[in-house]
Amino acid sequence: MKTPEEILSVIKKEDFFLIASHLDPDGDALGSSLGLSIALESIGKKTFVYNRDPLPEFYRFMPGCNKIKSNFKNILKKNPVLILLDCNSPERAAIEGYRFKTSLVIDHHETQKDFGDIRWIDYNAAATGMIVFSLIKELGITFTKNIATNLYIAIAEDTGTFRYNNTTAKVLATSAELVGYGAVPGIISENLYESWDRKRFDLLVMALNNLEIKNEVGIMHITKDMFKKTGTSSKDTENFSNYSKMVKTVKISTLIRETGSGVARISLRSKGNVNVAKIAELYGGGGHKNAAGFKTKSDIYEIKKSLFKEYRKLNR
Amino acid sequence: MKTPEEILSVIKKEDFFLIASHLDPDGDALGSSLGLSIALESIGKKTFVYNRDPLPEFYRFMPGCNKIKSNFKNILKKNPVLILLDCNSPERAAIEGYRFKTSLVIDHHETQKDFGDIRWIDYNAAATGMIVFSLIKELGITFTKNIATNLYIAIAEDTGTFRYNNTTAKVLATSAELVGYGAVPGIISENLYESWDRKRFDLLVMALNNLEIKNEVGIMHITKDMFKKTGTSSKDTENFSNYSKMVKTVKISTLIRETGSGVARISLRSKGNVNVAKIAELYGGGGHKNAAGFKTKSDIYEIKKSLFKEYRKLNR
Repeated sequence: MKTPEEILSVIKKEDFFLIASHLDPDGDALGSSLGLSIALESIGKKTFVYNRDPLPEFYRFMPGCNKIKSNFKNILKKNPVLILLDCNSPERAAIEGYRFKTSLVIDHHETQKDFGDIRWIDYNAAATGMIVFSLIKELGITFTKNIATNLYIAIAEDTGTFRYNNTTAKVLATSAELVGYGAVPGIISENLYESWDRKRFDLLVMALNNLEIKNEVGIMHITKDMFKKTGTSSKDTENFSNYSKMVKTVKISTLIRETGSGVARISLRSKGNVNVAKIAELYGGGGHKNAAGFKTKSDIYEIKKSLFKEYRKLNR
Repeated sequence: MKTPEEILSVIKKEDFFLIASHLDPDGDALGSSLGLSIALESIGKKTFVYNRDPLPEFYRFMPGCNKIKSNFKNILKKNPVLILLDCNSPERAAIEGYRFKTSLVIDHHETQKDFGDIRWIDYNAAATGMIVFSLIKELGITFTKNIATNLYIAIAEDTGTFRYNNTTAKVLATSAELVGYGAVPGIISENLYESWDRKRFDLLVMALNNLEIKNEVGIMHITKDMFKKTGTSSKDTENFSNYSKMVKTVKISTLIRETGSGVARISLRSKGNVNVAKIAELYGGGGHKNAAGFKTKSDIYEIKKSLFKEYRKLNR
């Protein structure tokens, strides 16, 4: 994974960077942004880290997370170079309509748009953190504990901490190197997986209680009332859609969330070769083979019935 | 982690090995045993793999798992060399009272006994699989996919798939190497974590429903009736004791299981520096700092009350 020369030369030449990543940020968006920011600042560059949405509570242990600002308008006059991370369209990062000195795009997601002056999109990278790791190396920057911790979190997030299919030898070897630089896996995992609020835990248990499994499909739902009873909201449901995959026979796991505005959000996850993006498309949504979703104005029990029916059709 | 010369020389010289590991085998016991067996057979040695207890269902994807026999008496007349793995006393493997040509002990657990002609006990190894990895390397044996898969499972098991404190750079680098030899992390993880029977899942949800949290302690219980209702048994509860640690405030998580014989088994797990072995000792049990347990004839609700009280005392 060689860094494109143009990216290296822009970074070496320029002094001020706006680092932006996608809305509803996850560990890869945040870890890549913070890791790169800390690295560039260590060689005397200035950076401004932007994400429109607030950090979920359990990411607040990430080194440097206070750097992240939800508004970047004040720094536009300094004419920053944009580095867009872990997404590749300006809308995904809420930066559309602005002009930047130069814009670099570094990502591993599929792309439909052609945004950016220089684009480095590596579909084979398990995480944007893997690409940023190479970039920092090729810039000759010394890895500190804080850089390593952020990149380790980025990689851990997007590989399910080394459980998903994208966990390659290179992912593990890179992570070993990051541990050598000071990332501490046990502490990172405790923060990522053992730092739930009680109310979030209660919401999960409520949802697990209503899991229905038919053939190879598991569906759980969360009503507005369940959110209210537990004092939680949609952002507390990260990863819930994966739980019913624990059951051997479940190839597609589904989470239906009733949101405040009369809209339900449906998240689909699948094992192995089962393609849930195709199902999401039937309902006007989209995504990847193993992770997709859509929104609907239907009643959640209606949509549950409809999904079981569609899945059954697909199985024929 | 240099292999002791005596171990190398016995293995090189001898031809027939009885490979045994601890009762109630886990991924490290099984993966180390099978990995070593396949490796030794690949250089023309004969091995017999023994474990008294049956393999839990979700380990039945391990390459060569049909090799494991629950009785070794018939092969004693061939005068095997014993290799005892992942434990260090003959009682832990149900091989006490027998004599072997030579006995090698390879383990990473604490030891009180002095069993074995040659002992290689490395407390710093995250898994016995890590020690067996070195051994196979130093014997100059070529790693195959089946050897690599078994050792990867061994290491994954004992590090919580790279989430526990014992996940070092060396653990990750070794695992990267094993993936290079053919272990497939995604498939292994699906088998370990996403292959539950529905009934086991239902039992977990039942237990989660009765979780009580007081101060830094979470306690769940499983009654005989819950086992009966779901058609499960004690062996289906592996890892349940860890679940309440998901909650940030829970430093000690506890599972109480009512067993058929009027005895309750209590498993204690803790985060970070909290020592649960000390608590288990108060009740006549024992274990390690972060994982301990004991048995009692008390009623499960009595023991729950008593535990909350003891924990409170310790906190003062």
